[in-house]
Amino acid sequence: MCANLPKTTRDEPARPVDWLLLDADWLIACDAEMKCLRGGGVAVEGDRIAAVGDSAELRAGFRGRTEISLAGCLLMPGLVNAHTHAAMSLFRGLADDLPLREWLEEAVFPAEAAFLSPDTVYAGTLLSALEMLKGGVTTFCDGYFFEESAARAARDAGIRAVVGQGIIDFPAPDQPAPGRARERAEAFLSSFTNFTGRVRPSLFCHAPYTCGPETLKWVKAMCRENRILFQTHLSETAGEVENLTAKFGTRPALYLESLGVLDELSLCAHGVWLSEAETAALARTGAGVAHCPESNMKLGSGTAPVPLLAAAGVTLGLGTDGSASNNDQDLFSEMDTAAKLHKVFGNDPTACPARQVLKMATSGGAAALGLGEVAGSIEAGKKADLVALNLGRPHLAPLYDPVSHLVYCAGRSDVRFVWVDGVQLVADGAAVGIDEAEILAEVNGIARRIAKK
Amino acid sequence: MCANLPKTTRDEPARPVDWLLLDADWLIACDAEMKCLRGGGVAVEGDRIAAVGDSAELRAGFRGRTEISLAGCLLMPGLVNAHTHAAMSLFRGLADDLPLREWLEEAVFPAEAAFLSPDTVYAGTLLSALEMLKGGVTTFCDGYFFEESAARAARDAGIRAVVGQGIIDFPAPDQPAPGRARERAEAFLSSFTNFTGRVRPSLFCHAPYTCGPETLKWVKAMCRENRILFQTHLSETAGEVENLTAKFGTRPALYLESLGVLDELSLCAHGVWLSEAETAALARTGAGVAHCPESNMKLGSGTAPVPLLAAAGVTLGLGTDGSASNNDQDLFSEMDTAAKLHKVFGNDPTACPARQVLKMATSGGAAALGLGEVAGSIEAGKKADLVALNLGRPHLAPLYDPVSHLVYCAGRSDVRFVWVDGVQLVADGAAVGIDEAEILAEVNGIARRIAKK
Repeated sequence: MCANLPKTTRDEPARPVDWLLLDADWLIACDAEMKCLRGGGVAVEGDRIAAVGDSAELRAGFRGRTEISLAGCLLMPGLVNAHTHAAMSLFRGLADDLPLREWLEEAVFPAEAAFLSPDTVYAGTLLSALEMLKGGVTTFCDGYFFEESAARAARDAGIRAVVGQGIIDFPAPDQPAPGRARERAEAFLSSFTNFTGRVRPSLFCHAPYTCGPETLKWVKAMCRENRILFQTHLSETAGEVENLTAKFGTRPALYLESLGVLDELSLCAHGVWLSEAETAALARTGAGVAHCPESNMKLGSGTAPVPLLAAAGVTLGLGTDGSASNNDQDLFSEMDTAAKLHKVFGNDPTACPARQVLKMATSGGAAALGLGEVAGSIEAGKKADLVALNLGRPHLAPLYDPVSHLVYCAGRSDVRFVWVDGVQLVADGAAVGIDEAEILAEVNGIARRIAKK
Repeated sequence: MCANLPKTTRDEPARPVDWLLLDADWLIACDAEMKCLRGGGVAVEGDRIAAVGDSAELRAGFRGRTEISLAGCLLMPGLVNAHTHAAMSLFRGLADDLPLREWLEEAVFPAEAAFLSPDTVYAGTLLSALEMLKGGVTTFCDGYFFEESAARAARDAGIRAVVGQGIIDFPAPDQPAPGRARERAEAFLSSFTNFTGRVRPSLFCHAPYTCGPETLKWVKAMCRENRILFQTHLSETAGEVENLTAKFGTRPALYLESLGVLDELSLCAHGVWLSEAETAALARTGAGVAHCPESNMKLGSGTAPVPLLAAAGVTLGLGTDGSASNNDQDLFSEMDTAAKLHKVFGNDPTACPARQVLKMATSGGAAALGLGEVAGSIEAGKKADLVALNLGRPHLAPLYDPVSHLVYCAGRSDVRFVWVDGVQLVADGAAVGIDEAEILAEVNGIARRIAKK
């Protein structure tokens, strides 16, 4: 029952730690065994989990500078949002229920061209970071423009992030001159003092249809050189797959494999239209897939073959995508939707069971981001990214199975406490040390300008 | 801009009313035009809406015994849950991710046989009523056993309800002796002092495969005689449709039409597997369909042809189904899922737009329940079933389109105030006059007995 506890006897003095979180009704570790402890707790020292286990034993072994009773709560690792464009909160609901091309070319692209700047990307990312933290997401993987601003927002919010500077072969909001993408990437990387902190850089090739083979290769080479995550959109729509396959004579994932850009530090977002051969390629290279069910549904893109990917051993994360196509950063809702979508799509009520979905949203996502040793589960030695949910709500009674409960019943509004790197960022449902009113005012001001256009 | 306001001049005294709700950032009437007012408000006298319109004009015309500023809020009619088995909250999450037959025959049926009683149905329904009210649902349509208890729970909770006594041709938890269903139905109806109150009776033939043609006919005759709603499950799974079609030589909805049981006071739940001819039959008879997307997804049943039903003019409501197959009573989540599901299912991002979904969840559902003149929209003369959402949340900023916002961004936890029949039942997110702790304790006690079995 008890994991990772130090051996203590009555003679040894209790070890002082920063936080002692005790007596959670349930602790779901989201480790390899998906361990569930009744009455569990966690000791946190600095930014790391010092011990996990039975609360009585933790009490005997540790003395917390702050001790919190989590009676009535469920303790879990923070959720990992494996794919988003956080600053797109600025365009939340700007253009719904439209055909894909109209949505992209008449609404999203013009709004991005007119309104993205270091300041607006900062504000939009900060809003999403706040939304994510209050909703139990402690890590997000971003891909967008002006990503120095996304990094700054993540640093200021206290959230963990992998922020990917967007690269395309055409002019972009933050690289208007063509052919300067490499300089842009280098400048972005040079803005980081280290690559292994709470906020880490990544490079994000928008897609194989907007980045030619040479671009894909030099970007991946730069990622390899710096040991950072390479990201790309992959096979989101049937149309792009058809075009790319015609152009390169092979399907997109096999094309990427042939370029040598797929490995364990490569993350492919969406992966909706993947053949069996492509699934095998992703599995053998170790590349991860960020599954974004709600965005794929809303844009009518299709349903990713998640049960097949999981069976093949592909590393799977779960993402919200940007708020222009979702329209939120709610990973609880994404879990619920993922679990249900694959059941109806495959005509199989046993498909995508709760444990598989919860793994995608936690340890699977962390592994896909290259953070498998850092986050995604409650285990001694990992970073203290923790979420406590209030179970005392009408929609959460009764509770027969805590894992199924998390996926099918719990929601963002049940989040009571959140820690990232051992720092408490949400207490009793409210953000700590973040001026929510100021962020809302800033974003609403930007939105008024967008709406006027 | 201003609707249904009485003509007042400065000489006329302001008319006293019970509630004056003023200055909502947005008022979405959910009337035929889906009117959206900025700065709107509502005057409530007794159990009815006295006027709807611009707040300045309401201030001039009315004096509220209680006046509330809804600045920062969105005011909308209460949501209508068009199909549920409310007491099944007792079995929430008892058996997830199982094949349909195993779920039904090894988990749900045995639990029902062992644990349903007037007391447990009361407790389970009360829990769901509480969950629904806190989530902005002000009307629900129920079908289950021991429905006198469901009626009592709805009365005690203050919520509006149509409660349907379950009828099947086999022994049921509340009618163990075969052949006594008619007496059971009569006894149920005789427990009501009137059929047009806030809580109304209905009869619920479980399905055409559990109720023979004679049963369907006498139940509908009894409903006609008493002008109450007739309910049945219809074509939830492909298997039942195949069996019924083989048995009766015609598809289920056409079979029901041939029996004469479909009219404007007939509500068919699910309607997943409907042919074009059946869609036409539902449209010409005026029978309603309660669409339950999340339950249909979770059980792998299929995707109802909602865009085709809507195009044919079928009256459409939106339902959660029971919490054993959803696992909640959250109609906000159901709206979001419905809007997205039909887009991916039909490969069309314009399918099931937000306005259509919001109509299903409000006026459409009310019409499908026979409450079209009573509930489902904010219009003078209708019952005062109202919900105010707090817009000042990170996931609700910015706001470009209030209707799309409701469907794709808002959630149950944004509900701030709820009124049913002009009585305030939720204030600042907390239930008023309902002992939440007592209900949770009662249900958790029942669940401990269920879990032990």
